[in-house]
Amino acid sequence: MITGKNCIAGDFSGKGSVGFKTINPKLNSENPTTFVEATKEEIEEAVSAAWDAFKTYRKLPGAKRAAFLNAIADEMLALDQELVDTYTTESGLPEGRAVGERGRTVFQLRTFAELVANDDWRENTFDAAQPDRKPLPKDDLRKTMIPLGPVVVFGASNFPLAYSTAGGDTASALAAGCPVIVKSHPMHAGTSELVASAIVKAAEKTGMPKGVFSSINGGIQAGVDLVSHPKVKAVGFTGSIGGGRALFDLAAKREEPIPVFAEMGSINPVIITPNAISKRGNEIAKTYAGSITLGTGQFCTNPGLLLTVKDGNTESFVNELAKETIALDPQCMLHPNIKSGYDKKGADVTSQTGVEVVGKVSGTLEPNYAASVVATVSGAEFLDNPKLHQEVFGPFSMVVQCKDETELLQIIEGLEGQLTGTLIAEDDDALDLAEIVDALQNRVGRVIYNGVPTGVEVCPSMQHGGPYPASTDSRFTAVGIHSIKRWVRPVSYQSFPQSLLPEHLKG
Amino acid sequence: MITGKNCIAGDFSGKGSVGFKTINPKLNSENPTTFVEATKEEIEEAVSAAWDAFKTYRKLPGAKRAAFLNAIADEMLALDQELVDTYTTESGLPEGRAVGERGRTVFQLRTFAELVANDDWRENTFDAAQPDRKPLPKDDLRKTMIPLGPVVVFGASNFPLAYSTAGGDTASALAAGCPVIVKSHPMHAGTSELVASAIVKAAEKTGMPKGVFSSINGGIQAGVDLVSHPKVKAVGFTGSIGGGRALFDLAAKREEPIPVFAEMGSINPVIITPNAISKRGNEIAKTYAGSITLGTGQFCTNPGLLLTVKDGNTESFVNELAKETIALDPQCMLHPNIKSGYDKKGADVTSQTGVEVVGKVSGTLEPNYAASVVATVSGAEFLDNPKLHQEVFGPFSMVVQCKDETELLQIIEGLEGQLTGTLIAEDDDALDLAEIVDALQNRVGRVIYNGVPTGVEVCPSMQHGGPYPASTDSRFTAVGIHSIKRWVRPVSYQSFPQSLLPEHLKG
Repeated sequence: MITGKNCIAGDFSGKGSVGFKTINPKLNSENPTTFVEATKEEIEEAVSAAWDAFKTYRKLPGAKRAAFLNAIADEMLALDQELVDTYTTESGLPEGRAVGERGRTVFQLRTFAELVANDDWRENTFDAAQPDRKPLPKDDLRKTMIPLGPVVVFGASNFPLAYSTAGGDTASALAAGCPVIVKSHPMHAGTSELVASAIVKAAEKTGMPKGVFSSINGGIQAGVDLVSHPKVKAVGFTGSIGGGRALFDLAAKREEPIPVFAEMGSINPVIITPNAISKRGNEIAKTYAGSITLGTGQFCTNPGLLLTVKDGNTESFVNELAKETIALDPQCMLHPNIKSGYDKKGADVTSQTGVEVVGKVSGTLEPNYAASVVATVSGAEFLDNPKLHQEVFGPFSMVVQCKDETELLQIIEGLEGQLTGTLIAEDDDALDLAEIVDALQNRVGRVIYNGVPTGVEVCPSMQHGGPYPASTDSRFTAVGIHSIKRWVRPVSYQSFPQSLLPEHLKG
Repeated sequence: MITGKNCIAGDFSGKGSVGFKTINPKLNSENPTTFVEATKEEIEEAVSAAWDAFKTYRKLPGAKRAAFLNAIADEMLALDQELVDTYTTESGLPEGRAVGERGRTVFQLRTFAELVANDDWRENTFDAAQPDRKPLPKDDLRKTMIPLGPVVVFGASNFPLAYSTAGGDTASALAAGCPVIVKSHPMHAGTSELVASAIVKAAEKTGMPKGVFSSINGGIQAGVDLVSHPKVKAVGFTGSIGGGRALFDLAAKREEPIPVFAEMGSINPVIITPNAISKRGNEIAKTYAGSITLGTGQFCTNPGLLLTVKDGNTESFVNELAKETIALDPQCMLHPNIKSGYDKKGADVTSQTGVEVVGKVSGTLEPNYAASVVATVSGAEFLDNPKLHQEVFGPFSMVVQCKDETELLQIIEGLEGQLTGTLIAEDDDALDLAEIVDALQNRVGRVIYNGVPTGVEVCPSMQHGGPYPASTDSRFTAVGIHSIKRWVRPVSYQSFPQSLLPEHLKG
């Protein structure tokens, strides 16, 4: 049962007077529940409780935090069809995606549970004492990782489960020993409340302090209040550059600045060599039509920029790509605001000098359904006009036709930071692939060879993050076990007696 | 031969018209050389050259970067007495300290050379492909660390060698594959130029690109120009909170924000239990008198705050500490500005309500020699007055007499972030040591048991950095091999053919 209330340290509370509803984008109508925005007092209560909980939660043995994370996974699965239905109703995404994303979320929770069941993840190091060293003796030193403190997590519009209330940021922060306060995404507040109720149940069953988790409904001011709070020590965010940058700026201006890991937009350049087009252009066009439109193009790894060196085959390839893309059934976007943003950004980009729309889904679409677009432009125009570099969030891709390899490299080297870069080529290609990879890896977090950027594997070798503006700190990842590093810091113990060392540093 | 020029990409250059001289604090007079501040064009030249050098330097095999670092160490040693004499002339520090600090600097360079001679430091991970996985196959993924780009390093006033031109920041950044531009510290510009000349010679001998290193003389504007430059990708700083915070703010406001690791002030709390005072108060007083005055108190780990729970022995301990401290010969400070800052801050703190000066070196001192001070105040006054928490950079320490253990814990929990925290206790102490350690480790980067915070070992288990304002990012260290992590970011390679993988990811 969705109540519309906030979850304040384990209790559902709705003291405020400002309400809002979520939207079913497929029906283009409001869902019934009224969600109550948290009051300043409720926010204060959540943060204070998180701070109090931190004092005990940070010291729990890893096995206890692991049990908590596994219990969250169990309780999420126990929500069963109600969660799937709420998800699809609030996002317009199909049931298969809901089930798949729930599976990913559960997998992430269990992966972090496994990670912290013992203390190896803490990167413990040991330097033995050398009492007889000259000229000065060396003391015994041991180092380990400890949690930063309460973390605020902002739910992502495009991942109502895997990067929202119990998603990757929450799972990694809880695993690290940090209490979490979620600012639920207003587009799927019902999904968030259900997941919050699962977390509360899991916390009760595994004996966690109540303040270990809260979830706040609200708008921009709630986010500002949370990020500005002195007892909040780090922030996780997935979303637009505008939103992520605003939080980053706010956190940097605090008396005590705190780290903000914001995973923001990306156009994910794909370099397709003329050789590859010549040998398998139609296959590439088909594969990329699928990647461009996957999830209605609403993935941060969506391939929004294809780069090639123009030759006699380019035109037919671009036409084939456009044909394959618009042949796919149009799909619903997450929200009317996302749809209008898509239309507006797309119109802005395609109205720039030199841009040609090669293919666009035509005819009357259902409300909130997106018309896929493939456009093209010359390398020279792209170099000259930064507006062409902006992300069009949705099923949109721009093919840039470079005049030669030099121009291609110039474009890659001048690109803003990206989550991914892909190279589609033949192993014995005519282009200098090593040079392209070298330039590309300097601008991105992940390079892919003969694949698609969509689909982000959860594994230790995944890097999801990249040079700004792909993320606010390229030294960390938002996906995979190493994402826990965002929420911890090293502490050294010098000359400590065994009795006062943490268990995992003894011996 | 010191020329007073800037080092711009391997060439010594002095196109500017603004000059300055360093000061011999012991003689209280200017040294002869006029140093020329870099012009905006010289700064631009240095950064552009660093950017160009980055393209090749980042790809060099680790063994080549190791050879470069070892050659820097060799060339520094070859400067021999000229370096030692310039160091002592510009800092007022004794020759023994110069030799010791040079040894530390050389050790750091050689340690990083050893670290990057192979690629294990890159934290490489490998996830094997699972082509038959259901429902979706898993691609081969490999992850490694790559350098961020050109790094700007600000020399520290109090470590003319070990945390300046070829100090820890420079050594770790060069090891990572980042070109370095040093903003030399104006108090020891001659020492900096000599070290820069050693780096240039080493770069020539080992075939490095010329832009791999530059050193800029200048004031605040030069620092602003460097940190604001779009081709600069990270910043290392050691110094005051004011200076570090200004650079942090500047970097955060950039169109592309960049990481700033600023290691700033700290008062390094030391908790001394009544039991320890009762059993060995005189010994502790003697040891701490040495630690408070070491290097004229000009260490970032100087114990500026001693905390105890008041009992019948406290007064005699404080008197003994004061007696031992003022019995030590006064020493010269680094610079007249440092000396006047010490006097001003000390006067500010000791004029606060409730503060009693227990001991202060009296009589007429040589110019720039510091009068050591031991003061005391009650726990209640300390809690009430944040001015008492500020760092007095020099041989100054404040003993806070808490009324009970609860007040002691309250003070620890409310402290600003610190580099270190120390506990002086008996193993069978009456106080709850575990509780004190738990509170302390949450506010600091390193906890020490029955030792002194001064003396920062260069080893893997060292954490030098802590919650703000001890440093701007507590997740990193400024000392030890892990300090290289400040300048690198992970990159994933997905489905890559062997031929296009970096050497260390092959196989």
